[in-house]
Amino acid sequence: MAAQRRIDLVLDSVKRLLRIGATANLLNLLQKQHPADLAQVFTDLADKEREAAFSLLADRNGRLAMEAISELGHEAGSALLATRPAEEIAKLAQEIPSDDAAALIDNLPEDLSNAVLDLMRPKESRVVEHLLEYAEQTAGRIMNPNVFALNEDMTVGEAIIELQSNRDVEMVFYLYVVDERRHLVGVVSLRRLLLVSPETPLKRIMTADLISARVDMDQEEVARQVAAYNLLAIPVVDEENKLVGIITVDDVIDVIKDEATEDIYRLAGVSGDERVFTPAQESLRKRLPWLGVNLATAFLAAAVVGIFTGTIDALPVLAVFMPIVAGMGGNAATQTLTVIVRGIALGELSWSNSRKALMKEATVGIGNGVVLGLVAAVVAWLTQGDAVLGLVLGAAMVINMFVAATAGVLIPLGLRAASIDPALASSVFITTMTDVFGFLSFLGLATLFVQHLTRAH
Amino acid sequence: MAAQRRIDLVLDSVKRLLRIGATANLLNLLQKQHPADLAQVFTDLADKEREAAFSLLADRNGRLAMEAISELGHEAGSALLATRPAEEIAKLAQEIPSDDAAALIDNLPEDLSNAVLDLMRPKESRVVEHLLEYAEQTAGRIMNPNVFALNEDMTVGEAIIELQSNRDVEMVFYLYVVDERRHLVGVVSLRRLLLVSPETPLKRIMTADLISARVDMDQEEVARQVAAYNLLAIPVVDEENKLVGIITVDDVIDVIKDEATEDIYRLAGVSGDERVFTPAQESLRKRLPWLGVNLATAFLAAAVVGIFTGTIDALPVLAVFMPIVAGMGGNAATQTLTVIVRGIALGELSWSNSRKALMKEATVGIGNGVVLGLVAAVVAWLTQGDAVLGLVLGAAMVINMFVAATAGVLIPLGLRAASIDPALASSVFITTMTDVFGFLSFLGLATLFVQHLTRAH
Repeated sequence: MAAQRRIDLVLDSVKRLLRIGATANLLNLLQKQHPADLAQVFTDLADKEREAAFSLLADRNGRLAMEAISELGHEAGSALLATRPAEEIAKLAQEIPSDDAAALIDNLPEDLSNAVLDLMRPKESRVVEHLLEYAEQTAGRIMNPNVFALNEDMTVGEAIIELQSNRDVEMVFYLYVVDERRHLVGVVSLRRLLLVSPETPLKRIMTADLISARVDMDQEEVARQVAAYNLLAIPVVDEENKLVGIITVDDVIDVIKDEATEDIYRLAGVSGDERVFTPAQESLRKRLPWLGVNLATAFLAAAVVGIFTGTIDALPVLAVFMPIVAGMGGNAATQTLTVIVRGIALGELSWSNSRKALMKEATVGIGNGVVLGLVAAVVAWLTQGDAVLGLVLGAAMVINMFVAATAGVLIPLGLRAASIDPALASSVFITTMTDVFGFLSFLGLATLFVQHLTRAH
Repeated sequence: MAAQRRIDLVLDSVKRLLRIGATANLLNLLQKQHPADLAQVFTDLADKEREAAFSLLADRNGRLAMEAISELGHEAGSALLATRPAEEIAKLAQEIPSDDAAALIDNLPEDLSNAVLDLMRPKESRVVEHLLEYAEQTAGRIMNPNVFALNEDMTVGEAIIELQSNRDVEMVFYLYVVDERRHLVGVVSLRRLLLVSPETPLKRIMTADLISARVDMDQEEVARQVAAYNLLAIPVVDEENKLVGIITVDDVIDVIKDEATEDIYRLAGVSGDERVFTPAQESLRKRLPWLGVNLATAFLAAAVVGIFTGTIDALPVLAVFMPIVAGMGGNAATQTLTVIVRGIALGELSWSNSRKALMKEATVGIGNGVVLGLVAAVVAWLTQGDAVLGLVLGAAMVINMFVAATAGVLIPLGLRAASIDPALASSVFITTMTDVFGFLSFLGLATLFVQHLTRAH
């Protein structure tokens, strides 16, 4: 954790220098940092401090300030950027690659982003606007349009000269080869250039069978390809197979993290684009619908209990044990659901093996139900002195945990079949299901055996 | 999704060729696939088919079979490998880089892995055993010890010749520079070699200020460094700063996925190393303790209800509404908990801004409580014709959702302060907490106002 310690030291110094107003020293310190470290420092500062430090750095070293902001994540980055006037944002946006600029501008409030686009140099704002035309979460939206390509008629020697005169291009390790109309025809690794003589035509050493992404490909699919084939970058082509951009592995890492976050959030009934510091009002607006749906379904569960108020009236002790059946079912269902949803996301679960997964989870569900049902039955028997109550509780738990396991497999698989994100089969829904079946099985069995149950109180 | 369609076609052909026993055609088809595609095909086959296809391929093209197995993930990969005799595994293990071999061998049943190590060539088994000595989830465990390094006294021309005679080394794009005792002293990018004359000494063009990982560094921290600084690889050094290995970005992507999976699982009370097809018995063994803890805490919640059986006896309708208070609190708590735990994992939440997060979540909690409490109150009033019952229900929901929000922030932060993984503050625990407070607030308020509540039934 040496890196963390170093960042903590920088953070303390930044806070101190801000407090005593030592602008020159502060600027000096900030300029020595890597953009990623600056992003971490910005994250850890209070709002006022962050804005002060950013404004100082943006004035003097716009590129570094913008690189740090790009590393902050789009939402937090845009929020910080939005504290500056439109003229300054327009100038700053031109300091970074247009894909990063597009992502930041896209997250600005709409008035501000329009003003910024108007104020940018026409050529650059056109590139940004063009990128923003691609649908969100597609290859086109995250690619860098500034891709280095070589003509197929070049020799290795010419390629090296071309490379030497383009020192600015982002991370070059695969050299894409195009024909005269910019159709992608092959790829040569940088290393390969070193291993052959300068007169060799590129055509001879290039690999023609290469993996590319269409501009409209979902970013999750792009990430899957890069990860599966261990690529460092993937070329992006339009519908005519013309090379229009490149997505590098560092951007893919961001996509993988974002998609994992989205899955984690959706499973918990949180919108995929929420973050820790999304304003309270916006979080409220995003979470309320989920909770509202759940309230409706909770009333459904309550209605099930309502059917049995006669039984509860006769035996109030049932109210003590009914949350156990529902709660344990909910937890078991969440376990199964999570394993299945993640299995789908990681590509481990397909149609042909879903029956096997169902059998497995059903077995686990019954196993858990039997063990825990037995324990609960004994506890209920010993504390209430009623063996039948114990049996009813234990049996209800076995039933509900079997239901939990099957629903935990079938609901996400069903959603996927309907082309809905399986992570949306969130715990919120599945818990309601296990509540309903929990109450139904426990209170139902209790009603059946009511004359055998002793009124303990 | 063209890639998926292609894999589905291959899958169908493999199944058909297996069925009709067309071994030569099958082998031909398998050998044409990329290892990653083969891994996907293996995943989608039934157990028997997978073993048959793998055994066929392993006989003829051991390297490709092992590369496919490496892409399968360690658990599934080892399970498939374990279907072969030890002698064959020992031979196959030597076909792939020793870090991949070590991971696969480590996941074999212990008897088998010992037998395999005994049967491997002494030099290779020594490398694998050495890797397995590093603690799990550290840089040493995931690095490739076969790292290409150049001596600092070389010239660029000598470096290129060295590179040309080492065509086998994994993904070379950063060339690490070491002194005569193999201390890591710098790095040169492959691209830089192309831009200077052959007589230039490496020392002059290398970057001495480079980021490296210690062998004992946690893999999550390694991944964070690679992602933060947009690296394609990170060199691994021992305590004396001697270069001992390299971790490439493709391995980092696996770590990021695994760590996200671990977080997702732990939040749901599932062990981080479970997978969809972990055998039922093992899944049962892994999940039972979590559910057992939850059963104990569920009895705690039941005991809280037990305090109020007198009130429920007087008003059985309370049993209908009490799951709503508990359930809504549980869902709200899960939302907050998830945002906070993920925020910690992504480095967005630090000590200095945790107070801000608490304030935000408390605001959201109260806001959600007021809106949903009001709706629930009105529904209870209208359906039961009792305004006081509605008020008690609404007030209990506000209280419980405030508790949910604060606990959802404080429990994971507290766990982190105690150096425990915050994801372990799983929904399992937090749900119990909201059950207890939900029952306590609802039944407690009902008891206070019991003479104002009408006995509807």
